[in-house]
Amino acid sequence: MRIALAQINPTVGDIEGNTAKIIDYIRDARARHVEMVIFPELAITGYPPKDLLLKPSFINANLKAFEEVLNETEGISVILGFVDRTDEPPARNSHISVLPENTLYNAAALIHDRELIGVQHKMQLLNYDVFDEGRYFVSATESRVFRLEHPELTIGINLGADLWVDEALERRVRQGAELIVNISASPFYAGKSRQRRELVARRAREYRVPIAYVNLIGGQDDLVFDGRSCIFDDNGALIAEGAQFEECLTVSTLDSTPITPQYDDPIKEIYLALILGIRDYVRKNGFEKVVIGLSGGIDSALTAALATDALGAHNVVGVSMPSAITSPASINDAKKMAENLGIEFKIIPINDAVDAYTRILAPVFKGTMPDTTEENIQARIRGNILMALSNKFGYLVISTGNKSELAVGYCTLYGDMSGGLAAISDVPKTTVYQLANYINRMKGWAVIPDSIIVKEPSAELRIGQKDTDTLPPYDVLDPILHAYIEENKSKEEIIAMGFDADVVSEVIWKVDHNEYKRQQAPIGIKITPKAFGSGRRMPITNKYMDG
Amino acid sequence: MRIALAQINPTVGDIEGNTAKIIDYIRDARARHVEMVIFPELAITGYPPKDLLLKPSFINANLKAFEEVLNETEGISVILGFVDRTDEPPARNSHISVLPENTLYNAAALIHDRELIGVQHKMQLLNYDVFDEGRYFVSATESRVFRLEHPELTIGINLGADLWVDEALERRVRQGAELIVNISASPFYAGKSRQRRELVARRAREYRVPIAYVNLIGGQDDLVFDGRSCIFDDNGALIAEGAQFEECLTVSTLDSTPITPQYDDPIKEIYLALILGIRDYVRKNGFEKVVIGLSGGIDSALTAALATDALGAHNVVGVSMPSAITSPASINDAKKMAENLGIEFKIIPINDAVDAYTRILAPVFKGTMPDTTEENIQARIRGNILMALSNKFGYLVISTGNKSELAVGYCTLYGDMSGGLAAISDVPKTTVYQLANYINRMKGWAVIPDSIIVKEPSAELRIGQKDTDTLPPYDVLDPILHAYIEENKSKEEIIAMGFDADVVSEVIWKVDHNEYKRQQAPIGIKITPKAFGSGRRMPITNKYMDG
Repeated sequence: MRIALAQINPTVGDIEGNTAKIIDYIRDARARHVEMVIFPELAITGYPPKDLLLKPSFINANLKAFEEVLNETEGISVILGFVDRTDEPPARNSHISVLPENTLYNAAALIHDRELIGVQHKMQLLNYDVFDEGRYFVSATESRVFRLEHPELTIGINLGADLWVDEALERRVRQGAELIVNISASPFYAGKSRQRRELVARRAREYRVPIAYVNLIGGQDDLVFDGRSCIFDDNGALIAEGAQFEECLTVSTLDSTPITPQYDDPIKEIYLALILGIRDYVRKNGFEKVVIGLSGGIDSALTAALATDALGAHNVVGVSMPSAITSPASINDAKKMAENLGIEFKIIPINDAVDAYTRILAPVFKGTMPDTTEENIQARIRGNILMALSNKFGYLVISTGNKSELAVGYCTLYGDMSGGLAAISDVPKTTVYQLANYINRMKGWAVIPDSIIVKEPSAELRIGQKDTDTLPPYDVLDPILHAYIEENKSKEEIIAMGFDADVVSEVIWKVDHNEYKRQQAPIGIKITPKAFGSGRRMPITNKYMDG
Repeated sequence: MRIALAQINPTVGDIEGNTAKIIDYIRDARARHVEMVIFPELAITGYPPKDLLLKPSFINANLKAFEEVLNETEGISVILGFVDRTDEPPARNSHISVLPENTLYNAAALIHDRELIGVQHKMQLLNYDVFDEGRYFVSATESRVFRLEHPELTIGINLGADLWVDEALERRVRQGAELIVNISASPFYAGKSRQRRELVARRAREYRVPIAYVNLIGGQDDLVFDGRSCIFDDNGALIAEGAQFEECLTVSTLDSTPITPQYDDPIKEIYLALILGIRDYVRKNGFEKVVIGLSGGIDSALTAALATDALGAHNVVGVSMPSAITSPASINDAKKMAENLGIEFKIIPINDAVDAYTRILAPVFKGTMPDTTEENIQARIRGNILMALSNKFGYLVISTGNKSELAVGYCTLYGDMSGGLAAISDVPKTTVYQLANYINRMKGWAVIPDSIIVKEPSAELRIGQKDTDTLPPYDVLDPILHAYIEENKSKEEIIAMGFDADVVSEVIWKVDHNEYKRQQAPIGIKITPKAFGSGRRMPITNKYMDG
């Protein structure tokens, strides 16, 4: 049987566009003599549709689109992700979601030649990290198999994490499934694609059944879906694979020769994820150009390099906004960076505004000493200027803060945190350096100038300031943050890893007390198992002191 | 039997403080010859603890506190909300939360005289609006009754929405329950307390069983819990009630004489909720004073009045920040408002800063016409100044935008949206007027001057500007927003309510396209069934066009 994995990039809510894309792929598959084409989870609505699912009109539009696709399946089989709805209220289960009159399911349909063969609802709803499926959907209790006649094949279909559950797979194989199809919307983090593959391979081997896995690609707000759809044969050998981070139609048969899986190194994967995340956020939201504040430091240099690779040099504007404190070297490095990227570059000195704030605040600040207030004012003037460029010229502001800074609050709310997208806010500072070096290696020259890479990190908001005045060195800070944020380790456990107790206490204190800043941060692109944003839901009002 | 409803105000994460408070209430109850004292849902951790529940150290601390309380129950029965944990992984159910090694339950314990009689886990986990219980907890399948010996009484205990489920209640009554206890953490919206009461009364009447209902009070980030704990007898008659928005220990017996339930009008309820929400956010986060930008308009006037009632006049600072566009009448109204409240008042003219931005942006803005960019710059200068006062003096900035503005994006990100708490961001503009009038009536004089109430609403960011230049009148806008946001009505349905089609289309377009602003807004206090914030989870990247 000729199977095609249709690894598409839908846009959330764009039911019309997604439907047109699905129909295009069906036609393409038919032209390539494919007998069954498989689309990812919720292909019609995009993933995750979130509270759009609470709008009855949205569900209606999705069902209408489903009919439209169904009518385009002449002479071919299609497996399609959509939102199913039944009129009966759900059997009272243990989770109250919206107390709906209707019941929604995350569903996969098997269609053949304009006929609906069957529908499988998702069993394992995900309710952790960024996932909120229990908020919208009722989970299926039945796992069935479906029989195709042309060609003859018994298929078990499941969705996303259903593949983790032994019982349901086992039952399907006992019911005679000759192929398991898993349709998925599995967001990226570094290394996840390998874990996913290993799971699929193990399942295929254990149950002696081929498995076709189809995953979305594309950026959607904080999430990037990386694709890497695949087919494993009943020995658990890879026989077909889709690209990573690209739309594609992968055509194969179930008796193809095994191929060797290739995995990119994690830094390259992160680079590609960030490029796609930036491009899709900007384009899907209707922006052409972006503007980035270039400080002369590594974070803004990396952000500009990523944006340039994502959008093209002609769509990126770099702005240096020097104050009296900014060193000539910083302005030069910013300029050099812009030149290297070939992007438009502006210098907008802010001293005049700094002085104005000093004058207008002098009466109320009389008798006080300069402190971080004055530093934040500078950062906020820069934020105001970037937003003015955004408002005047329709640019999207991309902010440049990294995860380490954001974790400990070493950033200014409404200042350098301003923007529509925080491109690298899930990238720890140590990974920022790795990405910069990767880009230079990949390009074969120092696009990001050495002077930027080797300089001592500084917010440059007062003379002689260095990050290490306030923070431990990043190679100490980052592993502490990893243990605390991604692994939920306690203070005691982190100290036991060999870190200085005072340093650990201070870092934890800072993470805990900067929740309010992060909750007002722009969306950032998730590249780790635990990003700030929709996957981390901490109370702001919170007196818990660990240890 | 003498029962006490311990309607306490815990703080999320403050396990030590909450435990001390619980023990104090037990002692107080014992001193008042109470035989059983009942605490609300998750009394030990506060509600909602959110992702603190993912920290094993947090669960440990909660269990240790539970033991501590248990040891303080000499001669008395206690029903107590806490997080229970079992070592077995959960029976595989349909929701995957955190794939935990351990299993967490939202639990109620019945303790008597330092002995644990039994534990009931919550059955109906809430997973809608602001609720994420399915993210953390496994739901109970068993509903049991517990037998107290001194005095003899068979009790059925349930938690929160468990009271909605007939089967479990019926089973408990069949098992001989002579009293149903419901411990709850039910956040306020206007009118909810009456709905809740009616539900409890109906249940008591239907099953001929007295029901004691205990609810939290207090502000926690965006939520306000309003208390109003109560006991209904087996005729469904109210026999005891706790205060609304206040901590209290309500002592009663099950054979008390019925009393007449009192309900405040919804505007008074909203006023009290906002006062408590402001006070608890400010105090629980360790702030003393707040600063509010006073524009001379009704929103900032109301916000300042609420903050003054919440915190005392000596803890509120009002700031007028006039530009060349600001009318002398606005400055006068701001000043009058501050005088009426007796709060500190500063005038910080911003023209000098406006001019500086004009100069430094002149080269890049050459050839462009003034537009909203210049308006936003002014708003952001004001935001910067308020934040500078916050940074320098440790004030919390309270922002003043209402729900109608926030819905349609008639506000400036990093400008008037700046702050730690958006006190009235769930209050529609028409309700803003009702609250202002209520406050004046309540105080017996025009604390909020008539000139502020009667003036035409304006953002005053360009000369002669009025809200109605950009928006429909608020008595048209607000019902459209209510239908679209709170009721998820489609464009068609709203037009069918009798509104102009173009107006409805434009309003919906604005709501949809300002999601990015709202997702960077400070926390606001929820007073309606659907507030922006944690209870509304819309994608930013979203091409769905209703109709």
